[in-house]
Amino acid sequence: MQNRSILNKRLPALGVDAILITDLVNVRYLSGFTGSSGSLIITKKKSVLLTDFRYQEQAAEEVRGFDVIIEHGERTKEIEAVCHAKGIKKLGFEEQNVTYSFYRNLSKRKVSLKPLANTVESLRIIKASQELSHINSAVKRAESAFRKLMPHIRAGASEQKLALTLEYLLKKEGCKRLPFAVIVASGPMSALPHAQPTERKLKKGDLVVFDWGGESEGYYSDMTRTVLVKGNNISKQKELYYTVFEAQSRAIKAVKSGILSAVVDAAARDYINKKGYEDFFGHGTGHGVGLAVHEKPVVSWRNKETIRENMVFTVEPGIYLPGFGGVRIEDMVTVGKSRCEVMTSLPKKLKIIER
Amino acid sequence: MQNRSILNKRLPALGVDAILITDLVNVRYLSGFTGSSGSLIITKKKSVLLTDFRYQEQAAEEVRGFDVIIEHGERTKEIEAVCHAKGIKKLGFEEQNVTYSFYRNLSKRKVSLKPLANTVESLRIIKASQELSHINSAVKRAESAFRKLMPHIRAGASEQKLALTLEYLLKKEGCKRLPFAVIVASGPMSALPHAQPTERKLKKGDLVVFDWGGESEGYYSDMTRTVLVKGNNISKQKELYYTVFEAQSRAIKAVKSGILSAVVDAAARDYINKKGYEDFFGHGTGHGVGLAVHEKPVVSWRNKETIRENMVFTVEPGIYLPGFGGVRIEDMVTVGKSRCEVMTSLPKKLKIIER
Repeated sequence: MQNRSILNKRLPALGVDAILITDLVNVRYLSGFTGSSGSLIITKKKSVLLTDFRYQEQAAEEVRGFDVIIEHGERTKEIEAVCHAKGIKKLGFEEQNVTYSFYRNLSKRKVSLKPLANTVESLRIIKASQELSHINSAVKRAESAFRKLMPHIRAGASEQKLALTLEYLLKKEGCKRLPFAVIVASGPMSALPHAQPTERKLKKGDLVVFDWGGESEGYYSDMTRTVLVKGNNISKQKELYYTVFEAQSRAIKAVKSGILSAVVDAAARDYINKKGYEDFFGHGTGHGVGLAVHEKPVVSWRNKETIRENMVFTVEPGIYLPGFGGVRIEDMVTVGKSRCEVMTSLPKKLKIIER
Repeated sequence: MQNRSILNKRLPALGVDAILITDLVNVRYLSGFTGSSGSLIITKKKSVLLTDFRYQEQAAEEVRGFDVIIEHGERTKEIEAVCHAKGIKKLGFEEQNVTYSFYRNLSKRKVSLKPLANTVESLRIIKASQELSHINSAVKRAESAFRKLMPHIRAGASEQKLALTLEYLLKKEGCKRLPFAVIVASGPMSALPHAQPTERKLKKGDLVVFDWGGESEGYYSDMTRTVLVKGNNISKQKELYYTVFEAQSRAIKAVKSGILSAVVDAAARDYINKKGYEDFFGHGTGHGVGLAVHEKPVVSWRNKETIRENMVFTVEPGIYLPGFGGVRIEDMVTVGKSRCEVMTSLPKKLKIIER
């Protein structure tokens, strides 16, 4: 894999002979291994996958170009043996993943350690064409499931029932696992950005936020749509919706290779602030999506990251009025050479449920 | 809560003034807090919950007897401030949970640190009556869902479809989340203890392993049943089944407060070995279940843990013949004063699917 060879070449600059990769998402990214127990030692020459006997067959099937070692004893001991055999004096490790306990055990072994951060994450942030294709497939599955959910959305349906049905439909589309439990939040609940579905039934005049994602080959998608259940007095709901709609459009238009991600955030935020809702948009505008549903880049006012070609992230401003309700609209975008491509294709015109 | 006060009293023996709890399952166990971001500082007097603004309302609702602090800056800085305000000189931390990176940041603050292991896990291993009641409810939900799945089990049904249907039924029973993705493994696939459901359709003569769990108030259940699809030559399948059946009965009978968990393992393993399958039962006999679906005690030949009253664990021997198929039968038990109570009530006589 290309990414592995980039990492190989970086070893001298990182000041290590090899890197121990323990984060399972990074393990999958670099080696293709999808088991629940495994780590890599990335060396200048042939790298190593360590796993246990349960995954022997799976490792042989999934992994190319690694020496596969089946662990028999304590993992730190096996790592020490590899370092000894390969002449590794200085071993980098993922300090944001390794526990203190594991570090302490490893530090007793005869190898010098160096904490490293974001070595693989900084590669994952730029997607290869194969990855873009998996993410696109995860988007399509999520959209197809939601279209099939649409006829079930009506006054009287409970949040829980709708969430459950959508999860079932997502799996039927082929998603092996879901990036997070589906969010369905109606009426006052929609004012909570992280609401969990309750037994509450949709009522007339409710704003209803759906936030869900799909999966394909380990890659995720993430999107949000807000619908409105028809009612007598829905002008405030509509105003909120179209404020977020316009803010989101502006943020998408702002996406460009070379700018700071904070500029994308500002495009949405400035509009929401101007409309008088500056106190009601408490989260960032977006986040990267890939093998993890929340990864780099962070699209927020706090962030100094530069947007680059082939990054994939969400654009999801929202307004949340406590006790009344909220609106969030979330698309995924890929950064192209000159402009960005919106991966999500579900309509964004306000859908008013007449049932 | 009683558990919290036990921990308070242990502080001097542990050589610390307070313990920082970062494992979210332990946070929930000690405080009732179910948010996805939070930590506790357990002190001699009033303990502290640290969380962020998103969980302010939820913390107020869920947590009693803690000072709740909403973090505004870096978490290690907030922890330092609490230690300063409460006169904490020596702070224990969970070395199996804290990352090296977090440890490194915390060690720069003005508080002396001490790594601790299993302080909360050793309490969690013994269940209170309230916990037993939640686990029982998780068992009931899992069983009720499986009964509703039964009519769908037939030759021609795919593993994936059955798994998906069972997940849907579990959620309908009220399980907010599932402990793990449902396993349905048929024919040769049933020889893999960790098989994931595939598109394979059930065939005549197949052994079919179902491994699934329920949830209630955060507590899990875990069980396995193996059924047989009627076929012409099923004597080998029956023999495997009744070997595991007998091994499992013996292991359950062996459960008693005061013995080593390895004795329970041996009761199943010795019988399986005697029948000539010593190479085909590669995993331990069971594991504890509670707020985590895999927790202490470990019931295995390697283990030196003593079985004690009000422990809850699985008893799940199996035989796996590569290329042919496998059988596993898994119940959950509670250890009583004199004998053990089997929590699972689904029948264990071999179910032959005639459809």
